[in-house]
Amino acid sequence: MEALLSERIEDFLSRNGGKKVVAVQGLGFVGAVMSLVCANGLTEDYAVIGVDLPTDEAIAKIEALNNGVFPISSSDPKVQEYFEKSRKKSNFLATHDTHAYAKADVIIIDINLDVDKVSCEENELESYDVSLDGFKKAIQTIGEVCKSDVLILVETTVPPGTCQFVVKPIIEEEFQKRGIEFEGYIGHSYERVMPGPKYIDSIQNFYRVYSGIDERSADRVESFLKTIIRTDEYPLTRLSQTHATEMAKVLENSFRAMNISFIQEWSNYAEEAGVNIYEVIQAIRMRPTHKNIMMPGLGVGGYCLTKDPLLASWSKQTLFESKNPLLNSEKAVQVNDQMPLRAFDIIRDNINGDLPNKEVLVLGVSYLNDVGDTRYTPVELLCRKLLRSETNLSLHDPYLNYWEELERPIETEFEKMLDRDYDMVVVSTAHSVYRSNDKLLDYITSRKNLFVLDCWGVFSAEELTLIKENNNIKVIGRGDI
Amino acid sequence: MEALLSERIEDFLSRNGGKKVVAVQGLGFVGAVMSLVCANGLTEDYAVIGVDLPTDEAIAKIEALNNGVFPISSSDPKVQEYFEKSRKKSNFLATHDTHAYAKADVIIIDINLDVDKVSCEENELESYDVSLDGFKKAIQTIGEVCKSDVLILVETTVPPGTCQFVVKPIIEEEFQKRGIEFEGYIGHSYERVMPGPKYIDSIQNFYRVYSGIDERSADRVESFLKTIIRTDEYPLTRLSQTHATEMAKVLENSFRAMNISFIQEWSNYAEEAGVNIYEVIQAIRMRPTHKNIMMPGLGVGGYCLTKDPLLASWSKQTLFESKNPLLNSEKAVQVNDQMPLRAFDIIRDNINGDLPNKEVLVLGVSYLNDVGDTRYTPVELLCRKLLRSETNLSLHDPYLNYWEELERPIETEFEKMLDRDYDMVVVSTAHSVYRSNDKLLDYITSRKNLFVLDCWGVFSAEELTLIKENNNIKVIGRGDI
Repeated sequence: MEALLSERIEDFLSRNGGKKVVAVQGLGFVGAVMSLVCANGLTEDYAVIGVDLPTDEAIAKIEALNNGVFPISSSDPKVQEYFEKSRKKSNFLATHDTHAYAKADVIIIDINLDVDKVSCEENELESYDVSLDGFKKAIQTIGEVCKSDVLILVETTVPPGTCQFVVKPIIEEEFQKRGIEFEGYIGHSYERVMPGPKYIDSIQNFYRVYSGIDERSADRVESFLKTIIRTDEYPLTRLSQTHATEMAKVLENSFRAMNISFIQEWSNYAEEAGVNIYEVIQAIRMRPTHKNIMMPGLGVGGYCLTKDPLLASWSKQTLFESKNPLLNSEKAVQVNDQMPLRAFDIIRDNINGDLPNKEVLVLGVSYLNDVGDTRYTPVELLCRKLLRSETNLSLHDPYLNYWEELERPIETEFEKMLDRDYDMVVVSTAHSVYRSNDKLLDYITSRKNLFVLDCWGVFSAEELTLIKENNNIKVIGRGDI
Repeated sequence: MEALLSERIEDFLSRNGGKKVVAVQGLGFVGAVMSLVCANGLTEDYAVIGVDLPTDEAIAKIEALNNGVFPISSSDPKVQEYFEKSRKKSNFLATHDTHAYAKADVIIIDINLDVDKVSCEENELESYDVSLDGFKKAIQTIGEVCKSDVLILVETTVPPGTCQFVVKPIIEEEFQKRGIEFEGYIGHSYERVMPGPKYIDSIQNFYRVYSGIDERSADRVESFLKTIIRTDEYPLTRLSQTHATEMAKVLENSFRAMNISFIQEWSNYAEEAGVNIYEVIQAIRMRPTHKNIMMPGLGVGGYCLTKDPLLASWSKQTLFESKNPLLNSEKAVQVNDQMPLRAFDIIRDNINGDLPNKEVLVLGVSYLNDVGDTRYTPVELLCRKLLRSETNLSLHDPYLNYWEELERPIETEFEKMLDRDYDMVVVSTAHSVYRSNDKLLDYITSRKNLFVLDCWGVFSAEELTLIKENNNIKVIGRGDI
């Protein structure tokens, strides 16, 4: 089996003779699409090998990729286009054979590095920890076989300090074991991937920050990035050390997480004062210096904002031995994790606590609009609370047919949802399909005593007026209703 | 005396026959310049009467204005230009005679509304309170004499709820006492005045948010604002209630205060990790969604950011009877108030605690660069701490010759500072004059054992390298030094 696998790689490489080889470690939301971008480089045509672990899930993904099925559904047509182009060129192979690293000129690290959160049932963060074991093992696997002059480019969001204190020593130790000197390059350039309608562009047509563990590594990273990113339009920014780029990534995500947690408190205040917070925020956004003030919503989800502030705080205390955590940033995660409880409270209060056996239409499961991604979605806590209160949930999401975390089917066709009697409709993800949707409005306005909760302000002021004429409706943060 | 005063107003009005009369209540940093903008209206030429209290300070200001001396020094040449134009037109009078309100078609309220903070010696906020007494008295003074069809436009930053719960009832009560009906208009449109090189433009060429206590008041505010603000380029935003515009103002300032307090924590982290936080923030700002991430510095000063989050939290609990304060926003003020202690600690640590009798050159007293304004300047806490440690301070600021709060003279001429021997140089305000200043660099590089602290990153990377070759220099947040 091993021999066969290696043979397959050799075959692939001989078919791509002369091309530089890029290995991408990790075929998740970043690695899979990063592979496509490398396989469709701007100034260079790479032979790309995507490598993942031999787990059941990863093997299914690898087989799908090799059989012409891209494993992530996306609203970005470029994803399918790039995938088909790479199929035609036969320059993209997926495998779990780590032998691939031995052949690579560039190895891009796109694996997960998780935070283990301990939270109570109400999502209150009680403690958290970071284990680098899996990450270290992955780096070791590379060090065991990689070329001496390879470029190892870390894209994973890591605790600041990781490239210098973890990656470099492991690689050097493996080379020492092999009795040869490491003459390669180690760099860090974090991704800013946004799954959604601009999935590919969020890599190829977007700003990048990079660094190297030394000057020559930084130079090598720069010349590689220029072959795959439109750096003429989106100039690269070089920072003077890997600590700095690692910190930039967790800082930018903490900035966002903190701004969301900040507006959550004001959203509650606006409700108390009967003020439409959306209107207020739109007015403030007219100021160029205040354009980025966030809108409130159901909560925060996804892989990054829910953990990156903790990664940073962990690094501060552990890798840099500080006595003080990043309290603001930790607090932001705590507040955001609990945001969905506010929506639950509003629902409960508006039907006088009488939840058992109520029929609830849940519109949207994904953590982000127009994306099929349930990772840490805030809809989860809301739904768990509703289920615990013995409501009956009907789930809709145009991008998902099954919810792994709750082990429940999801309906993707919108019309199919509207032939039943609901007691409540909750807009829990701001998917475009829910905006200006006549069928949804017709359904709502044809009922009496329906309770509607719009957690994201997808209904316009006119639509709200229309709905209010027929129903009892309440919208988070729109206290004038 | 009263009669004389009133006569003067009558004189003024007869000279300005036919013009609509605008009275501006309060001649501080906002009211004085707002008066100039009204006296130089875009589509209408108003007769403007600025009214302040009969205190010694205000009377000196009133006399200066009437004698052709604008009482606020400014780096914006338009201030002097507008003042001279109004002198030529004779359409601006200053007075402490409240009789002026009786003559006004529009009364603009630009008085202070303060928060009483109780802080310990280290600036740790222990409690705070808001008293509306002075504000109420000012509104009453207007209600006692104003025309029945007047427009009362509140520009003061007030606790959300104030126009409806305070201004409207007081005016109506005064009219009831007078036995007539109030048929006028009450509106709110907060100013976004930035003293500095664009002082006038921050009123006349900038976005405005407005509202009225009813639809017709909002209409009246709109038509007035259009006569003084370039609304074709900077469209107005109408909000549906005065609660909403009042909240918008304190929210936008809380947003800023909170973002500064957030970056403070990261700045400390960057120092610990030996990372240049300025470099990191510049890299992050390349992302359009992250353009407004703040730079760290000595601290936060000025009249707004230091109190507006507290005004909001007070309103939430008092006017809207909420059980919960705005914790995030209160916390931001607490953190920001204490920021200068960090600079003091760095100074103390870098000269091994040996502060007594050290000569310190303090560059900048104002809370903001290129402005002469000491209100709540963070330089104050730093200097108080240094004085308490028995250092000798030499103060420089190009815009200030006396520091009221510390009762100390300030030198305005830069060259005069450099003929002495200092042990330390602290850049405490980022005035432009300190940037790329060869004389300052020559002074610094000609000394040995000088300790230099640049609290705002005014020295470039090249200048820092130059300085380091000669000295022991440390810069906040630039841990690589």
